[in-house]
Amino acid sequence: MTSFSRPSGRAPDQLRPVRIQRRYTRHAEGSVLVCFGDTQVLCTASVEARVPPFLRGKGEGWVTAEYGMLPRSTHTRNDREAARGKQGGRTLEIQRLIGRALRACVDRRLLGERTITLDCDVLQADGGTRTAAITGAYVALHDAVGWLMARREIARSPIFGAIAAVSVGVYRGVPVLDLDYAEDSDCDTDMNLVMNDGGGFIELQGTAEGHAFRRDELDALLALGEAGARALFGAQQAALAE
Amino acid sequence: MTSFSRPSGRAPDQLRPVRIQRRYTRHAEGSVLVCFGDTQVLCTASVEARVPPFLRGKGEGWVTAEYGMLPRSTHTRNDREAARGKQGGRTLEIQRLIGRALRACVDRRLLGERTITLDCDVLQADGGTRTAAITGAYVALHDAVGWLMARREIARSPIFGAIAAVSVGVYRGVPVLDLDYAEDSDCDTDMNLVMNDGGGFIELQGTAEGHAFRRDELDALLALGEAGARALFGAQQAALAE
Amino acid sequence: MTSFSRPSGRAPDQLRPVRIQRRYTRHAEGSVLVCFGDTQVLCTASVEARVPPFLRGKGEGWVTAEYGMLPRSTHTRNDREAARGKQGGRTLEIQRLIGRALRACVDRRLLGERTITLDCDVLQADGGTRTAAITGAYVALHDAVGWLMARREIARSPIFGAIAAVSVGVYRGVPVLDLDYAEDSDCDTDMNLVMNDGGGFIELQGTAEGHAFRRDELDALLALGEAGARALFGAQQAALAE
Amino acid sequence: MTSFSRPSGRAPDQLRPVRIQRRYTRHAEGSVLVCFGDTQVLCTASVEARVPPFLRGKGEGWVTAEYGMLPRSTHTRNDREAARGKQGGRTLEIQRLIGRALRACVDRRLLGERTITLDCDVLQADGGTRTAAITGAYVALHDAVGWLMARREIARSPIFGAIAAVSVGVYRGVPVLDLDYAEDSDCDTDMNLVMNDGGGFIELQGTAEGHAFRRDELDALLALGEAGARALFGAQQAALAE
Amino acid sequence: MTSFSRPSGRAPDQLRPVRIQRRYTRHAEGSVLVCFGDTQVLCTASVEARVPPFLRGKGEGWVTAEYGMLPRSTHTRNDREAARGKQGGRTLEIQRLIGRALRACVDRRLLGERTITLDCDVLQADGGTRTAAITGAYVALHDAVGWLMARREIARSPIFGAIAAVSVGVYRGVPVLDLDYAEDSDCDTDMNLVMNDGGGFIELQGTAEGHAFRRDELDALLALGEAGARALFGAQQAALAE
Amino acid sequence: MTSFSRPSGRAPDQLRPVRIQRRYTRHAEGSVLVCFGDTQVLCTASVEARVPPFLRGKGEGWVTAEYGMLPRSTHTRNDREAARGKQGGRTLEIQRLIGRALRACVDRRLLGERTITLDCDVLQADGGTRTAAITGAYVALHDAVGWLMARREIARSPIFGAIAAVSVGVYRGVPVLDLDYAEDSDCDTDMNLVMNDGGGFIELQGTAEGHAFRRDELDALLALGEAGARALFGAQQAALAE
Repeated sequence: MTSFSRPSGRAPDQLRPVRIQRRYTRHAEGSVLVCFGDTQVLCTASVEARVPPFLRGKGEGWVTAEYGMLPRSTHTRNDREAARGKQGGRTLEIQRLIGRALRACVDRRLLGERTITLDCDVLQADGGTRTAAITGAYVALHDAVGWLMARREIARSPIFGAIAAVSVGVYRGVPVLDLDYAEDSDCDTDMNLVMNDGGGFIELQGTAEGHAFRRDELDALLALGEAGARALFGAQQAALAE
Repeated sequence: MTSFSRPSGRAPDQLRPVRIQRRYTRHAEGSVLVCFGDTQVLCTASVEARVPPFLRGKGEGWVTAEYGMLPRSTHTRNDREAARGKQGGRTLEIQRLIGRALRACVDRRLLGERTITLDCDVLQADGGTRTAAITGAYVALHDAVGWLMARREIARSPIFGAIAAVSVGVYRGVPVLDLDYAEDSDCDTDMNLVMNDGGGFIELQGTAEGHAFRRDELDALLALGEAGARALFGAQQAALAE
Repeated sequence: MTSFSRPSGRAPDQLRPVRIQRRYTRHAEGSVLVCFGDTQVLCTASVEARVPPFLRGKGEGWVTAEYGMLPRSTHTRNDREAARGKQGGRTLEIQRLIGRALRACVDRRLLGERTITLDCDVLQADGGTRTAAITGAYVALHDAVGWLMARREIARSPIFGAIAAVSVGVYRGVPVLDLDYAEDSDCDTDMNLVMNDGGGFIELQGTAEGHAFRRDELDALLALGEAGARALFGAQQAALAE
Repeated sequence: MTSFSRPSGRAPDQLRPVRIQRRYTRHAEGSVLVCFGDTQVLCTASVEARVPPFLRGKGEGWVTAEYGMLPRSTHTRNDREAARGKQGGRTLEIQRLIGRALRACVDRRLLGERTITLDCDVLQADGGTRTAAITGAYVALHDAVGWLMARREIARSPIFGAIAAVSVGVYRGVPVLDLDYAEDSDCDTDMNLVMNDGGGFIELQGTAEGHAFRRDELDALLALGEAGARALFGAQQAALAE
Repeated sequence: MTSFSRPSGRAPDQLRPVRIQRRYTRHAEGSVLVCFGDTQVLCTASVEARVPPFLRGKGEGWVTAEYGMLPRSTHTRNDREAARGKQGGRTLEIQRLIGRALRACVDRRLLGERTITLDCDVLQADGGTRTAAITGAYVALHDAVGWLMARREIARSPIFGAIAAVSVGVYRGVPVLDLDYAEDSDCDTDMNLVMNDGGGFIELQGTAEGHAFRRDELDALLALGEAGARALFGAQQAALAE
Repeated sequence: MTSFSRPSGRAPDQLRPVRIQRRYTRHAEGSVLVCFGDTQVLCTASVEARVPPFLRGKGEGWVTAEYGMLPRSTHTRNDREAARGKQGGRTLEIQRLIGRALRACVDRRLLGERTITLDCDVLQADGGTRTAAITGAYVALHDAVGWLMARREIARSPIFGAIAAVSVGVYRGVPVLDLDYAEDSDCDTDMNLVMNDGGGFIELQGTAEGHAFRRDELDALLALGEAGARALFGAQQAALAE
């Protein structure tokens, strides 16, 4: 299909440039700026010595997430959720997803009665903010656990394996990896995949508003996503090795 | 596998008894009580001659959904969201899903500048409330369109195909169809599938908090879901033929 | 006055058909569907082993109520209160009334430090939802107390007497019993009466927006209401005897 | 019953001293401080040249009310409703009552497309704040209508008759008029009556939490209330004659 | 500048008539009506035997303030903040200012674990409500401390010195003291000063929306304010001597 | 005074290193990262072709600001205001200040019916976030106006002069410039100054919770602030010259 091209000129199976910058701000136990191309998300991990009421006295910890977009991270300004007085449905959905995704690599008994909160704030948006957030939050979580171990608050890391996320979709009939805003807004079908580095699927969220996925498309998207996630695990390891 | 059994005694690929009762309440243009076993959801479709601001003057209609659980639809009483002063993240997530699912079978130009609101209120919950809601809301939507056609407000039905939803999951290592509450609360991995009657996937939402899906499990779950959806399309057609 | 007739064809002192169906849903300790004609209210009673802060440590229990209307229980769709983010004044007024009414037949010391919450959710509205709710909630409360006694949590029933409610009003100059929506919306004057089975008045709420009640009308309305309440006590006893 | 005495030493049928002070503040079109003994309520009437959406273009006006208590109008400090972020159920119930009561003496067609808002703010509370508020708001409303007529905005007064309100109750077995806080908090049964000066009842709200009204008590209370209201109409006329 | 005159006819360095009336309402431990000309603010001080969470167990007390305007204290009616569901930015700013100002004269260790809440409610507004509120709240605070000492709950007064506040501004080029509404709304530059009776500045809040203060104007305004505050300390002492 | 030293080792009249980075994010018409030492604030300016209701049809524009702190911009994590459902008093106070400050250099008639919103989001906090925000927002505003002029939407710049802000305070008895967090939290008295480049004062907000400013201290602080603001005007001009 010689005539097909993505707005960015990327190959269908090509990620955007990924950048993972640790220690981006000073105060948090983990602080990571993650960039998937022009999408930039600041992910901080905060450790607190308390757990939500439903876990009190059970000897387990908790990992949770909050998500926000700066009002002008987007093409046109969005209302500030703090000023409107509530978080929208999309925000709640994304932060629930990030929290579930990261809990999937944590042994909460080893964490002890502590909460790690992952705040994912979008400084600049160009599609894929939730997948960038999950990929970056993993590194921030890792740094926060390192901080706990350096202070000898915990003896063994509660993290097992790694977690990364990437989007896939059908753009003008062709399955493609890691959609940017131009593709995302002109695309019938897209799916966000959260995977672990053992090749398992943690979350699949595919949406086809109007055009349904055929089973063969679904298989092609899953294969693209698996390859993309492998590349992201490499980027996380490289960042953690610095 | 002689030792495996589901709490309900069902076979792994067996749906719960499905009941779809039309004209359940009097005032709505479509009103359906849908039961997946002990899960009972009242789905009403309300027609209004207006559209949300972002569609005004475009000659298109809108289909949207709201979801709620009666406080004592569940084993223990939940706070009433109206009293707490906001809808929780789970509620918003489910009602956004129902709305997207039903819009996938509607030609909004043929609907004209009208809104159809699908209210899905859970009278009794035993797992699978969102899949029952989507399956029942389709029938309520159909009745509301029939009401518009009977009054000659629209000449052609804007509905193409049918939409149904079902859950699948891995329970004690075995892929099973249509999880009830006993299974759902003791299950590592589950997925909600929304399909159309052409065999296409409209939504996939798979979650593995703790244990990841392997690819072969995913394939088995998709096959179970496809068969389950076919049975639900039959139940919808039977109800609409009455 | 040969020309007088009610929209429903009922005699001035005639109740609508009353139906009280126990065990309507599974999870609640008491669950009753009450119908006054086309008005249908689901009343559940939930027992919880805690009391509000102002009663802690006093050895007394609490009985409270919440009220809601499904968005399309009415002729035209009403906004969902959970989505609007607050309960309206009418809702708060009605649920406070239901709570007061039911507390009037409970010895809270005999209940012990427990709360019974009566959720009254209107599935279909045709006038008189609050009076139906009180009448049905009494039966749900009775079942919840029965559940507590069957589990030997309490030795003696804290319920004394029975409580029922009915509306009366002046429709086209004639005092009538149990107004339906057609009468209610075309009526100058109406009153809700809550009574006990000893013939005492628990609550009177009469409203005349525009035309004031004369004292003789008031006397006629009170007499109608007393007769209506007696019939409702019979219906409650019949339901409880099943 | 020689041993009976009210905490205040009043006779059972005796009102507290009533004071109605017009032009209490400067800016409002009507501004009245009404005192029933130690209960002091500031009632202002504000005229605005607009109506709520449901009345636009109908050529009718609207009369509505808002009610509030200063945080330390009471024995112990109450939370400020503005700080808590919502008005409580009691507040909403009272302001709805005040609005209905005053609309009962206004011909809204003669008012034209204007809204008169009656703000009733309790400076000091000693029982009976809602009845004092209604009685004072009538005078403020009258002054606001006088202001409209003086400016020749309306030619004829839309007010017909007068409205006043008083409480009655059974205190230690004796029917009494105009309960103060000491009586109100130690009383099984009380009723608020809103009447017009033609002797008609506009609102009756009787509540018996625990002990039901007998029919003979009810008759005695209605008689006390009628006499009390007559005295209040006199006080209003005297104030308006100044 | 012979042609200069203030709308009220006052000299540039002249305060409006100040009135400070103690024991204005009955229930509060301190209750003061303060009038700066036509600005009337009711300031109550409420003592409670508890402190906010951040002070628990530290042996210190707390002094805080809340501020509100009655809806028709102003020329045109303002929405009631309790009905809108939140306090506006101006309200929060003013009540934070009042609280900080009064804490500046209290030794919180001598107060012990108690909270004194100063409620400042504007009955009538004509400019300078926040400065009147601070000046009156000081007297109410003094009375509440007197109440505590009379009951021998505390042995020594925690109040040191006095606090008063006044506004200054540049009106038509001339520095003036104690702006009323007519001046305030036609003035480029104004400043609120909170001072103690030792001549120290507790708060300065100067705002020039459009025209900046020159340094010489600032010096003139500070001098006016110092003189104004001295007069207010005299008025407070006179009221406390009654 | 050999023994005095600031935690940072700075001289009393020394600013922290100032960095002003334009075009920090892509989408906003102006986007500036401003750093006062470790305090980092992202200031974006968004242009919209509409004005608030109170300005409609008047031919004038509006400049407004919103402020937020990322939850972990601070030493310990703060609740996310969007999740709590409202902006706190401090936030509202700061954003009102920023808006007033920037309006002081804009001729709103020349701006035409447009709104420029300045979003100031704190990425990292170390004292002085509001002064950094104002100083940076001025540059972002300048860039947004440049964008309007480049598109020929406006012919003349509506900006006159420059605006900058800096804090001053008395730290251990010594007046110092530009307080960082270590000083701010251990300081009796501090003041924020907003100035224009003509040497005029736009806003003064001085607070002494406990220890009052003497007049001579105030003079020393004003002098420090004037010098600091001059240095900030230089930094702004240098950034705008790039």
